[in-house]
Amino acid sequence: MTDAAPGGDLSQLRRLNSLALIGVLREEPGLTLTEISRRTGLSRASTEDVVRELLERGWLADVPAAAGAVGRPARRYRFRADAGRVLGVDIGGHKILALVADLDGTVLHSGRIAVAPAMGRKQRLAALDRAVADALAGAGVAADGIWAVGAATTGLVDGAGRVMLSEALPEWTGVDVAGHLGRRVGGPVLVENDSKLAALAESWRGAARYAKDVVLILAGLRTGAGLIIDGKLHRGFGNAAGEIGALPASGWIRAQEHLKSWPAADPEGDLDAAAEAVFEAARAGDRKAAAVVRRYVRDVAVGAAALVLTLDPELVVIGGGFSRSADLIAEPLRRELDRWCIRTPEVRVSEFGDEGVALGALRLALDHVDRELRESADLGGPERFARGPAGAGRGGGGRGDGGR
Amino acid sequence: MTDAAPGGDLSQLRRLNSLALIGVLREEPGLTLTEISRRTGLSRASTEDVVRELLERGWLADVPAAAGAVGRPARRYRFRADAGRVLGVDIGGHKILALVADLDGTVLHSGRIAVAPAMGRKQRLAALDRAVADALAGAGVAADGIWAVGAATTGLVDGAGRVMLSEALPEWTGVDVAGHLGRRVGGPVLVENDSKLAALAESWRGAARYAKDVVLILAGLRTGAGLIIDGKLHRGFGNAAGEIGALPASGWIRAQEHLKSWPAADPEGDLDAAAEAVFEAARAGDRKAAAVVRRYVRDVAVGAAALVLTLDPELVVIGGGFSRSADLIAEPLRRELDRWCIRTPEVRVSEFGDEGVALGALRLALDHVDRELRESADLGGPERFARGPAGAGRGGGGRGDGGR
Repeated sequence: MTDAAPGGDLSQLRRLNSLALIGVLREEPGLTLTEISRRTGLSRASTEDVVRELLERGWLADVPAAAGAVGRPARRYRFRADAGRVLGVDIGGHKILALVADLDGTVLHSGRIAVAPAMGRKQRLAALDRAVADALAGAGVAADGIWAVGAATTGLVDGAGRVMLSEALPEWTGVDVAGHLGRRVGGPVLVENDSKLAALAESWRGAARYAKDVVLILAGLRTGAGLIIDGKLHRGFGNAAGEIGALPASGWIRAQEHLKSWPAADPEGDLDAAAEAVFEAARAGDRKAAAVVRRYVRDVAVGAAALVLTLDPELVVIGGGFSRSADLIAEPLRRELDRWCIRTPEVRVSEFGDEGVALGALRLALDHVDRELRESADLGGPERFARGPAGAGRGGGGRGDGGR
Repeated sequence: MTDAAPGGDLSQLRRLNSLALIGVLREEPGLTLTEISRRTGLSRASTEDVVRELLERGWLADVPAAAGAVGRPARRYRFRADAGRVLGVDIGGHKILALVADLDGTVLHSGRIAVAPAMGRKQRLAALDRAVADALAGAGVAADGIWAVGAATTGLVDGAGRVMLSEALPEWTGVDVAGHLGRRVGGPVLVENDSKLAALAESWRGAARYAKDVVLILAGLRTGAGLIIDGKLHRGFGNAAGEIGALPASGWIRAQEHLKSWPAADPEGDLDAAAEAVFEAARAGDRKAAAVVRRYVRDVAVGAAALVLTLDPELVVIGGGFSRSADLIAEPLRRELDRWCIRTPEVRVSEFGDEGVALGALRLALDHVDRELRESADLGGPERFARGPAGAGRGGGGRGDGGR
């Protein structure tokens, strides 16, 4: 790909036409010039012009003609989603999951490292580094080939990508997640709370993709909530929306205690293991385990009902690690909501298992790239958007406002 | 005012220019042609043209020159807010309040009729008719001179302007508020829940006018909540947002019981009278009354904290009848929120007393008029927007979607 140096000569109109054309081809890859011209409303001559330039700059590529085509078929074009790479990471209590994807969000490789909730800061960050290195190596991408990083963490995140408050993980309050990743990987680092990103993932390509107002319940190590309102992630004035679980009356603190009370549970509080033991026993017909699950759901339902009565969403999505046990949770939760709510919304189970949060982090990174493309004065070539780690140039971007 | 018959000849561009010019003069009345031309970006000739036409049609008027002006000052123009009238009504438990206003929302006259919570449907609707008649007569407006009606009611409202469910008032579930008013007053009737409209009023010209995310707590006969999210009234998928009070864990049901428990309270449950008695006694230094107020605030604070933790708003506004006793409520509520919330938002008291809901109803009507102006294919003259009651022509519009 050649950058048409000096490069900065696209007029404002030219830039807008380029963006419109790229938008059309991202929606519908493989269009001909005639089709692009019709979809964009640009003249045939302008279309040819812009396509040629975007091909030269490396934003577009030809789609190979189908084998056996007769005569000389019209050339077809696609957006080069492979022109750039983004990284999404979920720094969780039980696992670190890193995903490398192309500009359309297609995951190329993932790195997963098991961690323990009791781990300290250093160990967890070291595991993060390994998960990221695995994902990059597997995708064949250098650290400075990453255009943007989205990172999910439990707790509250400040505007600079630091953890303001985490009660779930030891030594986690105060960790500078954006700084840590920014020194290791290229591109700005956007950091956000895990429940919010799980909601973003469902809204992007999950159970909530056709809904405008959605409550996501992240059921796992802790119970959390993420809100999509009017199609956009709702962050709140101080980026602390969705924290209803902090209120004792929500029942979410007690809900976890039920699971911990299970005799087979690790008294040190590895809740995930405890939960798995309870769910498994309940599935096997153990009555006491079934009662524990019932109590857990009943308490989670109080806070969920408060969210539903407050927002009257179209949809509630159950996500997080426990969504794998949806067979035991979803129907009882529906019944409990029916008991409390004026209008019980549809309840769906996430199909992402424990990967929803990492997918949301990926979306956060993609939102940043899309915004940069839209707002950059000169589109240039894709190589403009790859930059080394923060130490080598432009730094981490904090959490940004990558709402959708 | 003359309607330039046949009237339908404004081109689309002409219509947009007219709307832009009206918008400029609504923001800044009293501009000269030169100033209008500068603000709108229209040429001098176009500005003159559009102004002349809008003057003829009755949308604009001259602003009289200041007395003692030397020479011949440039003509100045204003939007004729007096070209139309809207009506806002609050159909409450203790009062009916009807406001007639001009197109800028300046209230011209109000009608207020005291009612009792125990009143049946017929009596309440008869009182509504009287309040509306008083307001219209006082403002010197005929029933068919009203361009749009906004109406507030307790309970849940369906898309056709009927009360789906009201637990606060007897015989109120099922009342067709839009139909009732539409047969008596001109213009479409938009009906909405009282807490939602109280929030709309604060966002329009009250304590929340500079805030994007706001929780309004309507403290009165019942405790209710209205939400402004991203600057817009949040209605919810089934128009049932803000109903967290229905959840026992919110404490809002019990909060009212404390007030009713006051010995001087009417056992038949006129909560407003009971509340006034308690607040008065507490103010006079009665310790038992102070304890009742404390318990009331403590319980209201649980639901309020749930809203705050969920949405992380910039601002909480205390509205409704009890806001007159804010001296006893606001500071303790702040302290309770501090106890439960991660980030306690600012708490302000509505300055509308018990008129906030009616003002919100007015805004609902104005939103409808603004939308009709924006969307009408031909602006015509103001007389186009006045139409007789529903029986005589176009009917009530249900609750519409007059969000801001």
